[in-house]
Amino acid sequence: MTGKTSNQMWGGRFASGPDAIMEEINASIDFDRKLSAQDIEGSLAHVAMLADTGIVSGDDRDRIVAGLNTILSEINAGTFTFSRQLEDIHMNIESRLADLVGPAAGRLHTARSRNDQVAVDFRMWVRAELEKSVAALGALMAAFLDKAEEHADTVMPGFTHLQTAQPVTFGHHCMAYVEMFSRDRSRMRDALARLDECPLGAAALAGTGFPIDRHQTARALGFSGPTRNSIDTVSDRDFALEFLSAAAICGTHLSRLAEEIVIWSTPQFGFVRLSDAFSTGSSIMPQKKNPDAAELVRAKTGRINGALIALLTVMKGLPLAYSKDMQEDKEQVFDAAATLELAIAAMTGMIRDLQVLPDAMRHAAGAGYSTATDLADWLVRVAGLPFREAHHVTGQAVALAEEKGCDLSGLELADLQSINDAITDDVYSVLSVEASVASRTSFGGAAPDEVRRQITWWRKHL
Amino acid sequence: MTGKTSNQMWGGRFASGPDAIMEEINASIDFDRKLSAQDIEGSLAHVAMLADTGIVSGDDRDRIVAGLNTILSEINAGTFTFSRQLEDIHMNIESRLADLVGPAAGRLHTARSRNDQVAVDFRMWVRAELEKSVAALGALMAAFLDKAEEHADTVMPGFTHLQTAQPVTFGHHCMAYVEMFSRDRSRMRDALARLDECPLGAAALAGTGFPIDRHQTARALGFSGPTRNSIDTVSDRDFALEFLSAAAICGTHLSRLAEEIVIWSTPQFGFVRLSDAFSTGSSIMPQKKNPDAAELVRAKTGRINGALIALLTVMKGLPLAYSKDMQEDKEQVFDAAATLELAIAAMTGMIRDLQVLPDAMRHAAGAGYSTATDLADWLVRVAGLPFREAHHVTGQAVALAEEKGCDLSGLELADLQSINDAITDDVYSVLSVEASVASRTSFGGAAPDEVRRQITWWRKHL
Amino acid sequence: MTGKTSNQMWGGRFASGPDAIMEEINASIDFDRKLSAQDIEGSLAHVAMLADTGIVSGDDRDRIVAGLNTILSEINAGTFTFSRQLEDIHMNIESRLADLVGPAAGRLHTARSRNDQVAVDFRMWVRAELEKSVAALGALMAAFLDKAEEHADTVMPGFTHLQTAQPVTFGHHCMAYVEMFSRDRSRMRDALARLDECPLGAAALAGTGFPIDRHQTARALGFSGPTRNSIDTVSDRDFALEFLSAAAICGTHLSRLAEEIVIWSTPQFGFVRLSDAFSTGSSIMPQKKNPDAAELVRAKTGRINGALIALLTVMKGLPLAYSKDMQEDKEQVFDAAATLELAIAAMTGMIRDLQVLPDAMRHAAGAGYSTATDLADWLVRVAGLPFREAHHVTGQAVALAEEKGCDLSGLELADLQSINDAITDDVYSVLSVEASVASRTSFGGAAPDEVRRQITWWRKHL
Amino acid sequence: MTGKTSNQMWGGRFASGPDAIMEEINASIDFDRKLSAQDIEGSLAHVAMLADTGIVSGDDRDRIVAGLNTILSEINAGTFTFSRQLEDIHMNIESRLADLVGPAAGRLHTARSRNDQVAVDFRMWVRAELEKSVAALGALMAAFLDKAEEHADTVMPGFTHLQTAQPVTFGHHCMAYVEMFSRDRSRMRDALARLDECPLGAAALAGTGFPIDRHQTARALGFSGPTRNSIDTVSDRDFALEFLSAAAICGTHLSRLAEEIVIWSTPQFGFVRLSDAFSTGSSIMPQKKNPDAAELVRAKTGRINGALIALLTVMKGLPLAYSKDMQEDKEQVFDAAATLELAIAAMTGMIRDLQVLPDAMRHAAGAGYSTATDLADWLVRVAGLPFREAHHVTGQAVALAEEKGCDLSGLELADLQSINDAITDDVYSVLSVEASVASRTSFGGAAPDEVRRQITWWRKHL
Repeated sequence: MTGKTSNQMWGGRFASGPDAIMEEINASIDFDRKLSAQDIEGSLAHVAMLADTGIVSGDDRDRIVAGLNTILSEINAGTFTFSRQLEDIHMNIESRLADLVGPAAGRLHTARSRNDQVAVDFRMWVRAELEKSVAALGALMAAFLDKAEEHADTVMPGFTHLQTAQPVTFGHHCMAYVEMFSRDRSRMRDALARLDECPLGAAALAGTGFPIDRHQTARALGFSGPTRNSIDTVSDRDFALEFLSAAAICGTHLSRLAEEIVIWSTPQFGFVRLSDAFSTGSSIMPQKKNPDAAELVRAKTGRINGALIALLTVMKGLPLAYSKDMQEDKEQVFDAAATLELAIAAMTGMIRDLQVLPDAMRHAAGAGYSTATDLADWLVRVAGLPFREAHHVTGQAVALAEEKGCDLSGLELADLQSINDAITDDVYSVLSVEASVASRTSFGGAAPDEVRRQITWWRKHL
Repeated sequence: MTGKTSNQMWGGRFASGPDAIMEEINASIDFDRKLSAQDIEGSLAHVAMLADTGIVSGDDRDRIVAGLNTILSEINAGTFTFSRQLEDIHMNIESRLADLVGPAAGRLHTARSRNDQVAVDFRMWVRAELEKSVAALGALMAAFLDKAEEHADTVMPGFTHLQTAQPVTFGHHCMAYVEMFSRDRSRMRDALARLDECPLGAAALAGTGFPIDRHQTARALGFSGPTRNSIDTVSDRDFALEFLSAAAICGTHLSRLAEEIVIWSTPQFGFVRLSDAFSTGSSIMPQKKNPDAAELVRAKTGRINGALIALLTVMKGLPLAYSKDMQEDKEQVFDAAATLELAIAAMTGMIRDLQVLPDAMRHAAGAGYSTATDLADWLVRVAGLPFREAHHVTGQAVALAEEKGCDLSGLELADLQSINDAITDDVYSVLSVEASVASRTSFGGAAPDEVRRQITWWRKHL
Repeated sequence: MTGKTSNQMWGGRFASGPDAIMEEINASIDFDRKLSAQDIEGSLAHVAMLADTGIVSGDDRDRIVAGLNTILSEINAGTFTFSRQLEDIHMNIESRLADLVGPAAGRLHTARSRNDQVAVDFRMWVRAELEKSVAALGALMAAFLDKAEEHADTVMPGFTHLQTAQPVTFGHHCMAYVEMFSRDRSRMRDALARLDECPLGAAALAGTGFPIDRHQTARALGFSGPTRNSIDTVSDRDFALEFLSAAAICGTHLSRLAEEIVIWSTPQFGFVRLSDAFSTGSSIMPQKKNPDAAELVRAKTGRINGALIALLTVMKGLPLAYSKDMQEDKEQVFDAAATLELAIAAMTGMIRDLQVLPDAMRHAAGAGYSTATDLADWLVRVAGLPFREAHHVTGQAVALAEEKGCDLSGLELADLQSINDAITDDVYSVLSVEASVASRTSFGGAAPDEVRRQITWWRKHL
Repeated sequence: MTGKTSNQMWGGRFASGPDAIMEEINASIDFDRKLSAQDIEGSLAHVAMLADTGIVSGDDRDRIVAGLNTILSEINAGTFTFSRQLEDIHMNIESRLADLVGPAAGRLHTARSRNDQVAVDFRMWVRAELEKSVAALGALMAAFLDKAEEHADTVMPGFTHLQTAQPVTFGHHCMAYVEMFSRDRSRMRDALARLDECPLGAAALAGTGFPIDRHQTARALGFSGPTRNSIDTVSDRDFALEFLSAAAICGTHLSRLAEEIVIWSTPQFGFVRLSDAFSTGSSIMPQKKNPDAAELVRAKTGRINGALIALLTVMKGLPLAYSKDMQEDKEQVFDAAATLELAIAAMTGMIRDLQVLPDAMRHAAGAGYSTATDLADWLVRVAGLPFREAHHVTGQAVALAEEKGCDLSGLELADLQSINDAITDDVYSVLSVEASVASRTSFGGAAPDEVRRQITWWRKHL
């Protein structure tokens, strides 16, 4: 196919025909350059081992080490020239190494293949990202613990179906998120433990006949030991899928928090006020604050779910060992990792800066006869009524209060006794929202003291 | 929060604290600059209408038009400075316009909001992409039609369960893909028809009191008319979801073709040989060809499915009208569109360049008693046996052929008659793979003449 | 493997070992019995054609037709015995037919295979479901049109970011949903047009040598014509994917509406009251109404998205023609179709029954200086200020109103003139929410007359 | 709305109007009856604790325990009448308990709500399913270990890009799956550890004022302790999401194995023969075996991915604490769990029964100059050539062998020395596939002794 006809056929973006298309679809250097630090770290460990086991000479090792360090400096300084024709990060570095140190460069690839090389690079990258997530989640939990402590007594409505159900405190609500994000952190830690095996030495797929020491490279790169099967090693992307799964669940938690912030920020709820840093205003409506950051965090769960489905789809039905399909793993993970990091940071900032408006919360908590279950519980506990009858009595009391336009605690004792004469003055100890909240002393319950006890426990386990 | 503590708290990427986070999560200019041509086109249409309806003066219009054209030149020349602090493409252009033409610039935003502005920009971008997809699918269909014509008589095995079932021709197989991609093209065309309404004039969400002419801007921007409800207009991203759906189904088709190319290219099948342009070799195994491009196309269906799920998730449960969540629409569509364009181009190239190996196909088609159903059909059609009995007789013939180590057409008439004496010499007319294929004359069947008839029909409908 | 060891090995559910597993994984009769009516309809059309083309005798046709009608009666009466050992609906019916009419039954399968048979059955089932969706969406649109008409003047806040932005009317908001569901309906109609080709006659994958008339069966089954390629015919499930895509987008719309209903029903918003039929109460809090049906509709978008991803994943990378993987198509589509039907019906009911609370809407619409943009627009339009300056003046007016604790329309003319002396008494014509709404007369805008115009248009296009 | 008009309006399935729709969408008893054993177990633990803490009397406890045991017997015997009007499993059982034991039944619900009740029921169900998965994966790993031991020396081609790359053994390939499924098992075990907290006692969302002992019920139900936050407890479905994530990754592994079985079973590859139990034949082509079970396992990964996306979508953006949306959790998990269980069982059966055809594997392994890298490695290791030069020499040797129509081991020493004179007779020790495989002695490599070492290790860790 001549340039001219291909130009006519392909047009636009692929004017030069098949070669342009192939370079576009095949080259990964535009994104896998993110792995350059890991690639060099892996090569340094590999060549050290090759020298220690006598596979390459000490002189060659020294040349290669010097060359790799030079390349690392060039990349860090932004002076390294990445080439699409060299396809990927491995070939870009290898080629530059040959420029720098000559034929010795060729020895670096002994007992190694791009298949185990990319596996170790990418695994180290994901490992670092998991560690960053663990730390970031800890910071988010800390922000919630501070807020929870500050608002352990701040009464707010507890919702089911987004309807007021029972009073709780804002501190108690915050602690629910501590639990959620602690599970996310725990999943990230498990993922770290599971990926703690070094791929290097699996070579193309069958291992190698060179007398390499896989335990040495594993140790040097911070792994507990080498992987146990060379075919699996080069065809496995579980560590990426598991990261994406954990990120998707975490993203779902973040989206729930974001939704609450959006709802709480409406004029109708007015439970919180976002800081200027995390909202945008209007030039003509100065009182207006759009919860942009919360909305974007809510949306980003879609992005992470998409990345997870993308990689699950890529890996579906792939025969062992390595297939080029697997090159599609990186961009999804890179994007999801950056998204998660950003979303957690934004939420940590929003929670730290969040201005809570206790009056609005308290007012909403008291509306809607939210202590009706407390009355029913009192009738069971103190007056000894069966649950079903207690419910019936409570329904009558609520109807009476509605009729009188007051809250349950606004009913007079005589009114209450006219419904059921077992009711005593003691009942008022449960009818206010403060009393209701204080009574929830069961383990993990809404009572401020119990909330504080959980805060203390979490401060020790942060 | 001082710089110092925020530095300690946020570290690394977000060293400067909340402001850096907010800019990172909120600014869209890094990706929505892709909409710059559409944004300017939309503004040109808008200001022309504003002048025609007397809302702005002719002088202001002229200044604005000149300014916008200057900006377009700057962007095309690469001299335009995009600023993250100006958040998005609309503000970047508006701000530059103010630099260029002064206060008149402010009049451009009359009777318009960023909400309807981004809706029209993005819709025009998706429209162009749909049109590109329609053209690209036409080119892919043309490649298949050429290949089908060339191989209308090239016998190959028709598979079910990846087991040889009945002989077909490679041309017939190619025509299956013409059908598949024609449905994709048809879906794209329907999507084009459905998005053919202009959002401009919906303003923030309620329409406007200025006496604008929405039909004029619609016409100027190539739409049949304006959208019918201003709230829907700014909250709708159906056109993006529909594009992604159509792309996902098309990507699924491409993945099936890719899988076939991968399997056909194995030494075990050896049905086709890929051109060098779309495969990679090995420096030490010169005969080896890895079907990299096909594998990557197969993988990219995951990427498109991921984009679809991402946007469906983003839009789930969003209250009307505009929410900032919707800013997450663009990157998914941009990425899926580029992916689809690339995957179609790669497949078009692979099909054009594909070297078919008829001998291997013919050999495989003849193995496995692939004409057994032809024998059964003959027994029904000519000898008048019920289907069930015909099957039984055929089973005996296959067993006999297996015993003798020959194909069905290799059995002697006496052998066949020993199984059922209604069999005559005429039976050999259906026992060869060529005869089998030639007999499939039903509409859309495998017979070469029927395949050619369908090619002719499609050439007229390309 | 003896029964005993397999019992030990497999335990529980699969106590009898491989056979139980294979039956469990392979048999589809538990779900594909839903296709029984379509299967019999297809067979009736097929045998009529076989007789008309002389492939089977009139007598055999009559026996088969009688047998099939008997089977249909048995199935409708619930007396038909479905057998898992006969795997699927086709074999169950074929086997029963043999019982009923003897060897003639075997002739029904002439020039047909289970591959084209299931393709036509399933396609007809999806076609019926699409038709049901079109009708159901029409009913939902009608419910919205009625509500829109009733509330064309009912002022409510128009939201962006769930913050009050500008006043609109509830009728206008309803019309946004008419637009959304009309696009869904349009997609369903396009899908109907695209699947309007009859698979019957593709046989196993290659077509057939019998002189069948595919146009006849196509017509008899309500299709415009036969499919054009036999391989594609048996390997295509686009019609299912397209239905799921359209359902997923529709489900997304339903989830947005559901979210709004949940939010509007909170005591904080109090914009609407759900009927008892679509909410659940509390035995002790009689005033409480949980929007259960809306929440469930919101959730069900996940179910449909899941079905779409499931089938996209199943079809990814499948070689042509038929693979058993495709048996996984039906349950996803059956479930998504039932889900969509139920969700649309529930929403139609909720909208019909919805009690709108105009006072709360009106009150919310007036809060938050929602007419600030109207003031700015007036300053541009009447006083001739550039947009930017108009914004500045408006900001000052809002600040003043905030200081005085009144709405913009509550400011005295002198106050306004102290900010900008170009302001005249005419400004009050835009400062009330009613005036604001009435002013949005652009095509598709919020003005009640414009809303009524769109209602009229849609009544003609319902 | 009268019966008559609702009949006209709703038609068909929902003929009785809103009530029928609400029952259809709201009632969960059709699926949550699967939780009946867990529901009763939870109630038994709860009432025992209520009695021990003095909240209910010993007599009431005894009556309730007796009643619950009666109900369990009725359910197990199939005599229990489930009612849709009672909505869910909890109300069905509670209502029957009232029938059996009268007013005492009402005391069971003291200090409990359906919110914590369903949380504990479902968590116990998922826990049991995770335990079943752990056991099933162990059985699958055992099947692979047996096969690996049997075929530790059976040479087969190791593939990359589905092209022959280097020889490995079938045993080595089997061990790759042992690694994959062991990671799945490990993920399931981590999920078990993470869900090991008992929800009971969180009540509606705020905990309770009754002096309950949550540690007692936790212990009684096999949990290490109670959950730490009552709001999180009733709004959390992480355990379900994590199960689905782990299942999706496991399903992906199964799909890869299934794909290999499908490909290996083609006449072109002919590496394995499936047992009759897991394949289907053809009545007229007796030699044919369709790998139906493998294809269905491959497809079922779509089903699990769909369930994962469904629940992630359901949970996206849900405000705390309980929303009715969460009722959509169960069917997805039930279906995915049954699917996973079935797919693992089918694969275990297929692997156990798999007939390996060593000759075809050995033949394929020897084709394509698969030991070319061994020659290159030998040139580096023994002859001391740099890698790059070794590659060049090997390329020449392959070209020569291709020219002579022989394998690399078929070249004479003189031929090899004509290319590079450093080559000695020792080179033949690496040119056969057996020698190549035997040389891969690195940890986790393909050498049979190394494979046996890994088998031994895994037998200890099974």
